[in-house]
Amino acid sequence: MSFARLQMKIDEVRNPTVLGLDPDLEHIPKEILEKYVHQHGEGLEAAALAVYDWGTALIDALCDIVPAVKPQSAFYEQLGSIGVMALKRTCDYARAKGLYVILDAKRGDIGSTAAAYSSAYLGAVKVGNLSVAPFDVDALTVNAYLGSDGIKPFIETAVQFDKAVFALVKTSNPSAGELQDKLVKGTDERFYSLVGDLIADISKEYLDEAGFSRVGAVVGATYPEEAAFLRARLKNTFFLVPGYGAQGGTAEDVAVAFNEERKGAIVNSSRGIIAAWKKRGGSYTEAARDAAFEMRSELRKAVY
Amino acid sequence: MSFARLQMKIDEVRNPTVLGLDPDLEHIPKEILEKYVHQHGEGLEAAALAVYDWGTALIDALCDIVPAVKPQSAFYEQLGSIGVMALKRTCDYARAKGLYVILDAKRGDIGSTAAAYSSAYLGAVKVGNLSVAPFDVDALTVNAYLGSDGIKPFIETAVQFDKAVFALVKTSNPSAGELQDKLVKGTDERFYSLVGDLIADISKEYLDEAGFSRVGAVVGATYPEEAAFLRARLKNTFFLVPGYGAQGGTAEDVAVAFNEERKGAIVNSSRGIIAAWKKRGGSYTEAARDAAFEMRSELRKAVY
Repeated sequence: MSFARLQMKIDEVRNPTVLGLDPDLEHIPKEILEKYVHQHGEGLEAAALAVYDWGTALIDALCDIVPAVKPQSAFYEQLGSIGVMALKRTCDYARAKGLYVILDAKRGDIGSTAAAYSSAYLGAVKVGNLSVAPFDVDALTVNAYLGSDGIKPFIETAVQFDKAVFALVKTSNPSAGELQDKLVKGTDERFYSLVGDLIADISKEYLDEAGFSRVGAVVGATYPEEAAFLRARLKNTFFLVPGYGAQGGTAEDVAVAFNEERKGAIVNSSRGIIAAWKKRGGSYTEAARDAAFEMRSELRKAVY
Repeated sequence: MSFARLQMKIDEVRNPTVLGLDPDLEHIPKEILEKYVHQHGEGLEAAALAVYDWGTALIDALCDIVPAVKPQSAFYEQLGSIGVMALKRTCDYARAKGLYVILDAKRGDIGSTAAAYSSAYLGAVKVGNLSVAPFDVDALTVNAYLGSDGIKPFIETAVQFDKAVFALVKTSNPSAGELQDKLVKGTDERFYSLVGDLIADISKEYLDEAGFSRVGAVVGATYPEEAAFLRARLKNTFFLVPGYGAQGGTAEDVAVAFNEERKGAIVNSSRGIIAAWKKRGGSYTEAARDAAFEMRSELRKAVY
């Protein structure tokens, strides 16, 4: 779905939060896994069933207060093909509950290979005369290091299937600056800013009804100055903002990622919500809901 | 496996070729898919079975003359979780045939997420008391845009499980230079060179018995000057060289990626081998074998 539709969902619940589903087995209460180990023995099958149960219970608990969910592909992939099946079923479940689904897979390649990734996650594959949509999520995170060849196939698919992508621009991790912050010779620009310009340039023809392009940007909450700089520069770019909470970003830090109309950004929280039960006690779904309510009120105060 | 082991396999067959398995359905003879469509109907299951059949037949046809295989994850992922199962089974088959398996998945993320990717593809996952290796390939391609946080978890896993990774440094595609070739202020260096330095620096403690680090570099055959520059600079780095043949790289172009002992690099060919049947006629496995023989003699002439 376009970012215009994501913005509508955000406006409906007045909450620019995306629930990050990172099914690291450490975040999942032991009894969920034990139930499936009891049925299927120790192994990837039990883990994948537990991860699906856990994710859908969190979606049930939060789908009336958050507009979007961001499953982290790595944690599903680490359970093998059965984990990837759990990922697909979790994405389907979230969409059926009305959530906008951002698959965080950071894919990136060129030509026909980039086209294959975009068909896999955003579009459809033709087998004989049948067209099948293997994952059919709303948006995918991508890596632009390979240049425009690597992003254009995703844009084509996004336009055709009414989807979107987020390209990594300035990430939230401590070492993000090692490469991303290098100044480019002959300019006063840093490298991440060139990446931002590139994705804005190649997607500028495809604006949706709210004026957003099909290529958003990942911009970390942990670097608010850079986020403010990018916000001023990339008028038509929707921002996905990781790094809130557990990684150190505050509501004030993320507020700069929103445009003058207080739109155009969504803030991710993974551990802060899904692992809240470890700090708060109680059931993991109730703890997650409580944490999400707190985050919502902090964001409402700082952003709106 | 370490790059020392890859080099041994290359030396055994005197052929620094890696067979690129890109199961784009367009490259696969129609009758293979038709057989499974007949059995299972049109859909991802038939396609995944066809892709497995095709890949293993190519492995059978070439495993005595090439040392390594590089499955392209995107084409398996586009068939959904059943495609990912075909990928895993194809990797297992190749390893059982004695091939070094490089999974081309270009993964990249940070912290616990990068650790999850490295567990998935190179290491093992713990479920209860059981440790399971979901994919267990020899090497994985990764993207270093996020900085050292994004690569270190892969190095740790590679050291622990005797594996390796290849980071994208200078890619083979036409738009590679848009970002990678930017000059960095205050230096005469281009951005890709910084990426090369970074991966060499963070992996320098972990040299194998042949003196190679655990982090190799993807360096395109289509940019021989840059490859020669990087070869001179990164003494302990093993190179994976895409872009030979269909993308325009010649045997002379790739020769510069090898060190003075004519070691330390492996050259990929995907379409040039797997789609040779379209140009040459005959069975796809025979055409692939003929094309691989030609490539081997061209490489032997230019490199050794």
